[in-house]
Amino acid sequence: MTPEEFRAHGHQLIDWIADYRAGISKLPVLAQVEPGEVAAKLPASAPETGDAGRSLVSDLDEIVVPGLSLWQHPGFFNFFPANSELSSVLGDIASAGLGVIGLSWESSPALSEIELRVTDWVRQLFGLSGDWRGVIQDTASTSTLLALLEAREHASQFSMSGGGLAALDRPLVAYLSRYAHSSVPKAALLAGFGTDHIRWIDTDETFAMRPDALAEAIAADRAAGRVPAAVVATCGTTTTTAMDPLAAIGEIARAEGLWFHVDAAMAGSAMILPECRHLWEGVELADSLVVNAHKWLGVAFDCSLYYVKDPAHLERVMSTNPSYLRSAHDDDVTNLRDWGIPLGRRFRALKLWFMLTAEGAEALRARLRRDLDNAQWLTAQLEAEPGWRVLAPVHLQTVCVRHEPTGRDGGALSGEALDRHTRAWAERVNATGRAWVSLSTIEDRWMVRISIGALETEREHVETLWQEMRAAVAEPSAPEIRSRS
Amino acid sequence: MTPEEFRAHGHQLIDWIADYRAGISKLPVLAQVEPGEVAAKLPASAPETGDAGRSLVSDLDEIVVPGLSLWQHPGFFNFFPANSELSSVLGDIASAGLGVIGLSWESSPALSEIELRVTDWVRQLFGLSGDWRGVIQDTASTSTLLALLEAREHASQFSMSGGGLAALDRPLVAYLSRYAHSSVPKAALLAGFGTDHIRWIDTDETFAMRPDALAEAIAADRAAGRVPAAVVATCGTTTTTAMDPLAAIGEIARAEGLWFHVDAAMAGSAMILPECRHLWEGVELADSLVVNAHKWLGVAFDCSLYYVKDPAHLERVMSTNPSYLRSAHDDDVTNLRDWGIPLGRRFRALKLWFMLTAEGAEALRARLRRDLDNAQWLTAQLEAEPGWRVLAPVHLQTVCVRHEPTGRDGGALSGEALDRHTRAWAERVNATGRAWVSLSTIEDRWMVRISIGALETEREHVETLWQEMRAAVAEPSAPEIRSRS
Repeated sequence: MTPEEFRAHGHQLIDWIADYRAGISKLPVLAQVEPGEVAAKLPASAPETGDAGRSLVSDLDEIVVPGLSLWQHPGFFNFFPANSELSSVLGDIASAGLGVIGLSWESSPALSEIELRVTDWVRQLFGLSGDWRGVIQDTASTSTLLALLEAREHASQFSMSGGGLAALDRPLVAYLSRYAHSSVPKAALLAGFGTDHIRWIDTDETFAMRPDALAEAIAADRAAGRVPAAVVATCGTTTTTAMDPLAAIGEIARAEGLWFHVDAAMAGSAMILPECRHLWEGVELADSLVVNAHKWLGVAFDCSLYYVKDPAHLERVMSTNPSYLRSAHDDDVTNLRDWGIPLGRRFRALKLWFMLTAEGAEALRARLRRDLDNAQWLTAQLEAEPGWRVLAPVHLQTVCVRHEPTGRDGGALSGEALDRHTRAWAERVNATGRAWVSLSTIEDRWMVRISIGALETEREHVETLWQEMRAAVAEPSAPEIRSRS
Repeated sequence: MTPEEFRAHGHQLIDWIADYRAGISKLPVLAQVEPGEVAAKLPASAPETGDAGRSLVSDLDEIVVPGLSLWQHPGFFNFFPANSELSSVLGDIASAGLGVIGLSWESSPALSEIELRVTDWVRQLFGLSGDWRGVIQDTASTSTLLALLEAREHASQFSMSGGGLAALDRPLVAYLSRYAHSSVPKAALLAGFGTDHIRWIDTDETFAMRPDALAEAIAADRAAGRVPAAVVATCGTTTTTAMDPLAAIGEIARAEGLWFHVDAAMAGSAMILPECRHLWEGVELADSLVVNAHKWLGVAFDCSLYYVKDPAHLERVMSTNPSYLRSAHDDDVTNLRDWGIPLGRRFRALKLWFMLTAEGAEALRARLRRDLDNAQWLTAQLEAEPGWRVLAPVHLQTVCVRHEPTGRDGGALSGEALDRHTRAWAERVNATGRAWVSLSTIEDRWMVRISIGALETEREHVETLWQEMRAAVAEPSAPEIRSRS
């Protein structure tokens, strides 16, 4: 495709994106397709002859968008806010257009230097000390894998430089909360710890890790001759935004010589608000920390910020230095290839830089405060209306809820019947196309998880959600629920 | 930023990208900055107040582009062609604009379905059997790590489900060629094999792995009670595009029960040309295969295609299934989160799909054939002119060369003096701003590696390079070289 053809298509596409985002609230938030429906619209093989005139925006309208659940929709209350501020999208477009790749500093100097600079900007916005150095990874899954690999090598006195894990005479153990994100045990397993050496630490009534239970588990492993290696605490669990007590956990980690990783993938964004920082008190005790700037903060996916205290340790675990990557500047510069798994890197810093520059810190703080207010407003409605129960403290913007109506026998609905009721009303809400909430479990029972904070989500959209929720539980019950009464 | 502000900036940016790409040959290919120069142009902290009117294209012109080495420049002969076909850039722009994330199928159905469909398109273009299933990863480093993790779990009867690697009574061993890419030993080390259990297999005079040496190494490890677990063969090494003999290696892997991974990150693109497929004869014996579509093939970075024969094994190693990711369709669909490390995925399939649709397979084949011709042309010039030596077979588009002039004593320059000469003339070529070649080592001596195949690189640019090379060696020698005569 020539630059002139690109220009024509590109202008069309920019208008399409602007119109799409401006009109997104009129589309259904949940994809309206059955499995296989999108794939069936594509031919079975690539075309032999190209068609540079083919309308890309028609493909988007006819094939792609009907097959998408719309993360930018103001009625998106599922998973987490993935905001893609349009200023950030511009940075990502520039990155695609430049088409450069970071391998060594020399391969794209601005890529490395802007990445180090803007991750430091965000460090300051979070109120973190100058001891931290940041680098952009794709996702928290990868960042947490890096942390567990760093922990493994720390605890094994660099087994990778010798016989590897199989040469250890005592196994390494990783500790995490029962409510840690699935990426945490996955990282421990990929790093080679083994299921037998993952300890799921009990939580308290707020679903936060119990430091006393952690200390007990460490002591038991030591007594059995195993090597406690890493503890992962979560600042804002996926299920309920529970806050593991970082200070207490960090003190234990420090006393016991464990690597301390903090998973603040979602809730870390809140730390641009000074009034929220008490929630991660003790974070400075950690060795590594992940915050996904591509979540609530608003950077276009993917932009996971991985902060470490000791980049030299990270480099030692990750470094490669073949001749075809050496350059005259290697002693003067940071080669980010040695700060993660991939050798090649996109110019992801552009989307973070452009967003921060165009929006400014104050506007981001104001947006997050709006979302906190909306979550408190919804919580207040739920608490004021009989039958609804808020299941966990609303620390930030996620509200976990059940509707627990009274049955004909005078008792509250419970057990399997309550599960059926929960699933039924959530699915009714989602079927409206105006809101999309998560169905999740807690303590083995279904609940509805409402994550507030899409860019376009104003109070009116939360009010609409609340109306839909009340309508959904008021509807004639589904057969499974009727059969109980 | 509002959709209307985005629209205004976006149109400017599209024009900027089109102009940048149309005029790129007038810019110096190698970045003209010193370490720290770019970072110094950014303030030390993020702005408190945003500036949605700030000119992003001015930032690109003044801060970014002077700090970049230009991968799209027709004089880019370093690393590998990273083409970013503009049709592919459009797909990436659409992905950024849509802002959706793949977690489960349900989170973005079109993302999963188009990814599976278009990776299958490319499988067919490569002439691979229907036994392969493809998925997009970020880079070959990650794909190869997946392969080594799959191999580890295959050889250890799923140690991750039990005591992990430390519980093994016999260590696992990985085999790779002396010329394997740095990402291969890195992957083995991250997977926990340990340096002691990586075997660097000797190569023949074409720098390809010797199957007899591989068989010997496996036998020695078995005799010593170790467990041969994985062999990684390279189709087109980074240094010289050497071709490990896949059929012979694959037969050994099959007979010995080793996981067989093929790293065709760079050369795999050539397999859209039937006349090149003899170079990877035996690839069907492999268990896993990586080809980076973001290299010569032309997709905007990042788009590494990872193909496996047994996706159920990959899923077993990578799977996670927490309640907040479950959906009603889980039994009917493929959840690509279980086909790699990250939970979240960008809609990377769009850039592959748009490129294949806009360009068509025939045009891609014609472009690659142009590059093969240019490499043969340059090789012919080098072979016809005294003093120049082509150091390795030119299988595809990479030419490895030294200039070995005769000294006053009648002997050819050699040893350290030859290294100084090589480095000096390469740096003179690179200083012109019209071409950028790699300095690399082979058999512990410096050489120049010329990788042909940027989108805009026509015969005239290779002719210019050849002129610059001849001028560079004809210039008065650097002091180190003069001192020898």
